[in-house]
Amino acid sequence: MNNLNYIEFFGFSAALLTTIAFLPQLYKTWKTKSADDVSLIMLILFIIGLICWIIYGLKINSIPILVANIFTLVFNFLILILKTTYKQAKN
Amino acid sequence: MNNLNYIEFFGFSAALLTTIAFLPQLYKTWKTKSADDVSLIMLILFIIGLICWIIYGLKINSIPILVANIFTLVFNFLILILKTTYKQAKN
Repeated sequence: MNNLNYIEFFGFSAALLTTIAFLPQLYKTWKTKSADDVSLIMLILFIIGLICWIIYGLKINSIPILVANIFTLVFNFLILILKTTYKQAKN
Repeated sequence: MNNLNYIEFFGFSAALLTTIAFLPQLYKTWKTKSADDVSLIMLILFIIGLICWIIYGLKINSIPILVANIFTLVFNFLILILKTTYKQAKN
């Protein structure tokens, strides 16, 4: 494996892991029907940040930044929807 | 504001927001002494991903990637420690 591939391996692993990490959170929230311990402010700030990453990825034509952040945005948006839905159902 | 600054604005906003987003989560977890709804698998995958981002940032000499991910790693590591501490205290 040459040096560039070795560096790219860490870049792709990083993007993949910090994206798929939200799938177990999404599954847990859906299964337990509760996300009270998940901070609403965190989700909102994170989602705005992800939108900025997507704009940045578009502007610098970076497919990895674009793809990773679109998936992460979808997962976090679904977690936010589930959290607010379950919160309303409790009240 | 020229075009480069405009692009960099989104890059810096993105890095800042997806980093500081974890501060309200850290504060909430510390205040409520509970993080049962926060997925342990998410935290572990995310932390491994952040370590990959830090290695990638070092290899490509990117200070923004390095700085943003070091802070995000510290915040998520603290959330993980609090979560496991409070879990043990309950059992």
